[in-house]
Amino acid sequence: MTDRLVQPNDTALLLSRDHKRYLIRLLADGELHTHRGIIKHNDCIGGVWGREMKTHLGYPFLLLDPSTADLIQDIKRTTQIIFPKDVGYILLKLSIQPGVTVLEAGTGSGGLTLALARAAMPGGRVISYEVRPDMQNLARKNLDRVGLLDQVEFKLKDIAEGFDEDGVDAVFLDVPEPSNYLGVASRALRSGGYFGTLVPTTNQIQRLLDRMAEYPFGLIEVEELMLRGYKTVAQRLRPLDRMIGHTGYLLFARKFERAIIEDVPPEAPIASDDDLPDVG
Amino acid sequence: MTDRLVQPNDTALLLSRDHKRYLIRLLADGELHTHRGIIKHNDCIGGVWGREMKTHLGYPFLLLDPSTADLIQDIKRTTQIIFPKDVGYILLKLSIQPGVTVLEAGTGSGGLTLALARAAMPGGRVISYEVRPDMQNLARKNLDRVGLLDQVEFKLKDIAEGFDEDGVDAVFLDVPEPSNYLGVASRALRSGGYFGTLVPTTNQIQRLLDRMAEYPFGLIEVEELMLRGYKTVAQRLRPLDRMIGHTGYLLFARKFERAIIEDVPPEAPIASDDDLPDVG
Amino acid sequence: MTDRLVQPNDTALLLSRDHKRYLIRLLADGELHTHRGIIKHNDCIGGVWGREMKTHLGYPFLLLDPSTADLIQDIKRTTQIIFPKDVGYILLKLSIQPGVTVLEAGTGSGGLTLALARAAMPGGRVISYEVRPDMQNLARKNLDRVGLLDQVEFKLKDIAEGFDEDGVDAVFLDVPEPSNYLGVASRALRSGGYFGTLVPTTNQIQRLLDRMAEYPFGLIEVEELMLRGYKTVAQRLRPLDRMIGHTGYLLFARKFERAIIEDVPPEAPIASDDDLPDVG
Amino acid sequence: MTDRLVQPNDTALLLSRDHKRYLIRLLADGELHTHRGIIKHNDCIGGVWGREMKTHLGYPFLLLDPSTADLIQDIKRTTQIIFPKDVGYILLKLSIQPGVTVLEAGTGSGGLTLALARAAMPGGRVISYEVRPDMQNLARKNLDRVGLLDQVEFKLKDIAEGFDEDGVDAVFLDVPEPSNYLGVASRALRSGGYFGTLVPTTNQIQRLLDRMAEYPFGLIEVEELMLRGYKTVAQRLRPLDRMIGHTGYLLFARKFERAIIEDVPPEAPIASDDDLPDVG
Repeated sequence: MTDRLVQPNDTALLLSRDHKRYLIRLLADGELHTHRGIIKHNDCIGGVWGREMKTHLGYPFLLLDPSTADLIQDIKRTTQIIFPKDVGYILLKLSIQPGVTVLEAGTGSGGLTLALARAAMPGGRVISYEVRPDMQNLARKNLDRVGLLDQVEFKLKDIAEGFDEDGVDAVFLDVPEPSNYLGVASRALRSGGYFGTLVPTTNQIQRLLDRMAEYPFGLIEVEELMLRGYKTVAQRLRPLDRMIGHTGYLLFARKFERAIIEDVPPEAPIASDDDLPDVG
Repeated sequence: MTDRLVQPNDTALLLSRDHKRYLIRLLADGELHTHRGIIKHNDCIGGVWGREMKTHLGYPFLLLDPSTADLIQDIKRTTQIIFPKDVGYILLKLSIQPGVTVLEAGTGSGGLTLALARAAMPGGRVISYEVRPDMQNLARKNLDRVGLLDQVEFKLKDIAEGFDEDGVDAVFLDVPEPSNYLGVASRALRSGGYFGTLVPTTNQIQRLLDRMAEYPFGLIEVEELMLRGYKTVAQRLRPLDRMIGHTGYLLFARKFERAIIEDVPPEAPIASDDDLPDVG
Repeated sequence: MTDRLVQPNDTALLLSRDHKRYLIRLLADGELHTHRGIIKHNDCIGGVWGREMKTHLGYPFLLLDPSTADLIQDIKRTTQIIFPKDVGYILLKLSIQPGVTVLEAGTGSGGLTLALARAAMPGGRVISYEVRPDMQNLARKNLDRVGLLDQVEFKLKDIAEGFDEDGVDAVFLDVPEPSNYLGVASRALRSGGYFGTLVPTTNQIQRLLDRMAEYPFGLIEVEELMLRGYKTVAQRLRPLDRMIGHTGYLLFARKFERAIIEDVPPEAPIASDDDLPDVG
Repeated sequence: MTDRLVQPNDTALLLSRDHKRYLIRLLADGELHTHRGIIKHNDCIGGVWGREMKTHLGYPFLLLDPSTADLIQDIKRTTQIIFPKDVGYILLKLSIQPGVTVLEAGTGSGGLTLALARAAMPGGRVISYEVRPDMQNLARKNLDRVGLLDQVEFKLKDIAEGFDEDGVDAVFLDVPEPSNYLGVASRALRSGGYFGTLVPTTNQIQRLLDRMAEYPFGLIEVEELMLRGYKTVAQRLRPLDRMIGHTGYLLFARKFERAIIEDVPPEAPIASDDDLPDVG
């Protein structure tokens, strides 16, 4: 099989040896001005990915097609993004796959939006709500840069008034106080649909858990993922000195046809320790 | 929008209040024999997901369409599976999306295989190698049960002889000693392609790092994900007493056009601590 | 130097190959009845520690002098103990050393009590409050078994009425709701004294933080320690499959001469991320 | 009880609101020159701890007696120190208490040395070996500053030649390659004595485990402690954004009277998962 060559309009990631990263869309006759000199887009187009490109000053850059994780990490942002470690897990837990309809609020910088678009297409719908026009514009630019702008329906609207859609497969809330929108989310979801949210504080998780009982939600799970990186030296393998200590707490739930009283005593965990999957 | 109703051939998850889980394919006139009595498939078909079903003994079960995470977790298995927390991250790091071609070895019980199939379809190819006929049969059954059998090309072959394909977008190795197959993986990948593997021990990571320098791999990352669950009680929010302490170490890399000598001193990490993304 | 030999009244730990642990006090003519046969105390006395002892059935046991960590772990208990990983850190943070006076409430099974006694003696005082006579009796037995009973002053009293002492160096609270006793603890402490507590839930930490501002406490720190064990096999070094996911949140503070308004904005952490010690 | 007042020769910690820390020994007529002005020692002496002191420029500092954790953290150092989280656990696992004899190599900056001295005195002996005169001098200064210089026997000697002592209760190695000194450590220990070491890399742990079988060591444990700090804001309780990802792997063992062949199959963990203590 011959490798597919780099083409105009492809999204490219250019990496310098000093770990600077440039995420761009390649255009005929375009130029990338780096801290180490200029790279002409035409020199990239027509070759293979994984090549070394030199600036006009002779400084080498790697030319790569960015992974979904790269796209999320390198998005232009003014607010905290959702990290790839969390995005990957969210996609699996909300069962995002081609054909599903998923609502997101707020859009933010569009990091999760682009991952949802990649996972739900073709055949699905990603509808993303945001109240701040500047954030929505930023997200539009971010998705345009990676060729996914047409895959998302952007709405500039406060979800306090409710979502426009109903019967959707999944709702993800990334808003300052998601516990205020549980009714809104519940009404938009189909029976059996997936609910997810990410919040930074334990107080927000407590308010969510407190209010979820008012709505037909069940199978509630609260989890967090810690990512630990390692130094990649065979003779001195060890974790990196520093790590991200916290990104957020994840809460997942399913919408039921109607509220089902779970007959568990109030202090018993719904997901008990005994439910840990076998680990051979 | 009217909810899509449960139909014959749908994969269903039935959950009891005592946390037993039954993952089945619904067939006209089929019966599910649970530890609490019988549920007729016909009673499930035609209704909505998220309903409560009763066995002939009156015991209630929840009827749900399983998420990708559920499918992975509830797969029938004889060996250790890759956990959803790792699967979601692998899909993002290897950039699995509709249209890509990805090779996997070995197939194992098929947990990652089904996640790859869901993510690469339509338009992609998932080719899964396995040396043990019994494992391949188990994986086939697992994928058939969830309606994904036709989305995967199964091969019964030792990859020591090489993959049959080349120019592929991604290779994932889940074999006892992946460091033995770096040349094989490298030759199958397109320039710029994605390599990933998961191993339980630090010794295996050391051997991988030691040998990767012989092949045109770069941007090597070693990471692990720790998942911490919480008790879902608003007034007593706290982590679960026990957690999975370890599933495996993840190693990711990109294939370059040719070996590029990175001019870093031998003890310096390629991914330095300074590369931590902003956490504002 | 000749090894000190095992003597009557020594506390001994006897370990079987199947990981059963017996913590006993050696008495002339005493007998230990194990699940694998009988060991005579006289056979232990007069030899060295670190020996293999055989039961009358020929089953081997290791004879060891227990470490402080062993004593804590093997204490007879009816409630959750404080784990060695937390005890060691508490001793350092509260600066427990020979000569200090420290108050503890409640006594519980006496695990922390015995560690405090070992660390504060000679010259110090450990005063331990408890409201339940059965718990106090259990703790007395536990401390007697390890020869530390005389080092602790036990009080059967509800600290809601206040501690009897003042000007003490350190107070540690291990009670259901420590936020109710901040005034009591504050009044007992000398200026500059150390306060510590351990609670299982985030809600309790929130209530503590909320109420500490009413008292002359400062330099407040909230931390948790996660202990990860590894399989001790050189060729397959890896973490254990399962770990303790949570024991509790630790809160430490110092008592000031008077309430000092710290001029930090309300959302800024008192211990900021920038304070991380160098890890060169 | 009247609070003990600050006296000449006391070690004091002075903390500014912008988190600068000054660890000093108070001397009659001494002066502390801070980044915010001068504090006269005489103004500190005779008052209580926990007071606010003002510089000649009116800038406030807190006057505190440092905890053992503070002393370790604020030690003057040219190399990586052992963190308080690890020190506290080491003291418990090695059972350091008044009266024991403990050997340490190397001395380094003296952080662990001072914690050992505080824990083993009175009645014990702390003997600390170092090969670099500059490091030993630094450690001497650090212990002098906190009044513990007389409690430690410093030796300038390479332990490759062996320790001068035998029959000691505990040996702790903090050297570049502790696996080279297992025989030396073993010969110095009494039967039943405690061995501990801390290393940064997995490779070092593997070499230790590989060679320990040649010596009469048993009950080997490999562990690591992860410390997670929280923002101390009641309404927004959450972990700090960043944490120390790694300080080192701890290995503990006991010396047996003679090598005891443990009849476990080579791949079985000596400390099995089943040994996790109860967590109620």
